[in-house]
Amino acid sequence: MHGGLAVVGVGLLGGSVALAARRRGLGPVIGIDRDADALEQARRGSLLDVASTDLTAAAAADLVVLCAPVDRIADLALRLAPACRPGTVLTDVGSTKAAIVAALEGRLPPEVAFVGGHPLAGSEKQGHPHADADLFVNRRVLITPTPATAEAAARRVESFWRAMGATCRRMTPQEHDRAVALTSHLPHLVASALAGTPPPELAGLTANGFRDTTRLAAGGAQLWSAIFRSNRDALLDAVGRFAERLERFRAALEADDAAALEELLQRGRRNRDELLG
Amino acid sequence: MHGGLAVVGVGLLGGSVALAARRRGLGPVIGIDRDADALEQARRGSLLDVASTDLTAAAAADLVVLCAPVDRIADLALRLAPACRPGTVLTDVGSTKAAIVAALEGRLPPEVAFVGGHPLAGSEKQGHPHADADLFVNRRVLITPTPATAEAAARRVESFWRAMGATCRRMTPQEHDRAVALTSHLPHLVASALAGTPPPELAGLTANGFRDTTRLAAGGAQLWSAIFRSNRDALLDAVGRFAERLERFRAALEADDAAALEELLQRGRRNRDELLG
Repeated sequence: MHGGLAVVGVGLLGGSVALAARRRGLGPVIGIDRDADALEQARRGSLLDVASTDLTAAAAADLVVLCAPVDRIADLALRLAPACRPGTVLTDVGSTKAAIVAALEGRLPPEVAFVGGHPLAGSEKQGHPHADADLFVNRRVLITPTPATAEAAARRVESFWRAMGATCRRMTPQEHDRAVALTSHLPHLVASALAGTPPPELAGLTANGFRDTTRLAAGGAQLWSAIFRSNRDALLDAVGRFAERLERFRAALEADDAAALEELLQRGRRNRDELLG
Repeated sequence: MHGGLAVVGVGLLGGSVALAARRRGLGPVIGIDRDADALEQARRGSLLDVASTDLTAAAAADLVVLCAPVDRIADLALRLAPACRPGTVLTDVGSTKAAIVAALEGRLPPEVAFVGGHPLAGSEKQGHPHADADLFVNRRVLITPTPATAEAAARRVESFWRAMGATCRRMTPQEHDRAVALTSHLPHLVASALAGTPPPELAGLTANGFRDTTRLAAGGAQLWSAIFRSNRDALLDAVGRFAERLERFRAALEADDAAALEELLQRGRRNRDELLG
């Protein structure tokens, strides 16, 4: 058999990819994970057709979606690719792209392609029990081919995501990382810094505003530490830009300047409206 | 007639107080607003029994809830109180308490009481069409009596909010302002600074994380400028504490220190869990 889909890493995202693909008839779906118990649960929960703790079992598929933490994706691709048949396409769902793409460019067998991908969908929840067959519906997936990427491979990945209900947009790995540093990694960092600020004695004195503003802080610390580090330069730049805006608020407050505060608040509101389209 | 409830300022909060009170049989409800059209809509929408643009119409009630912006509440109380009968209790829903309580202490007729209140409930939405009869159910209302407050007046306000489904907690106006600077005003300021950071060209590259983290930035700029200014010292302190945590993230990222980043992320997550109880 050579066909169907393999998902490497059956957590929230991998489980959702598997479930969404099976529900849409894109199977059979092979699931690979190091955690044999979680894998067996996922298989019994109808997320997977075949489950294996052996990475090379993924070589039976012609499309492999790597759903591991960002600091493990390139290594998995390098280990898996030699076992794959010609024409196999590897892609991923990692939150950063430049480091992964650079680590793989020119290092895979000539007829095995890697195309970077990043669905702008997720959750602070973790684990396949939270898998959602519609997680990608009406979401955008950023695809990051390079001049060395075979066009057919990029199209294969795009048609897969479209079949999952998503829309695709191509950009370079570097453009991708600079953009999501501002739109995703910075919000995560800010949410976490904010969540750590009020002393715990203030328990019971928060409202929905605090809950929502800090929701991202509930995400996995290891996962996000790896994401931050793999997008370090762009994220440091984003933190700097945010710190400048914060300083403008501080200065306006220090000066008790009503007009400046209102203008800053209005700019936040308008910019948000533009960004959310 | 002397009895029932008056709501001064029929926006989202005032409209919700009115609707919630009528649904729970705590009426009749007199609604006061400067905007005659909005008021008439609210009356036709069954939020109010009586509507008036004349502030002193509120004097017919024995409990008056001032639902105006924080910088107008004390003035409304000072103008209304001389028209009130002995035994009338005035309260409010303002997001800051120290300035309002200080502006009224010792300045009202002896048999008219003011008790500061602040329901930890709200929305970035504005206007009575978004009024919600259950906005206060299972929410906490912070009540800020002072040593000069008649105990019966504080109890009257507490029993009102309990009848609306809320629980009450007493604290001093100063304790209140220091606490909400960290749990409410800081999150609003941070959400707004974050919402203003990514350039608008990144429209379409945001996910739910950005939307939720910046939700508060959709709130009214004038309302929040006034809230920030009336809690200036405590908010400046809160911004300073947040900036310190942000700087720790920046330094850990600059040093590419995985352990430090993970610890910071974990602290955010744990502290949030403690705060949300």
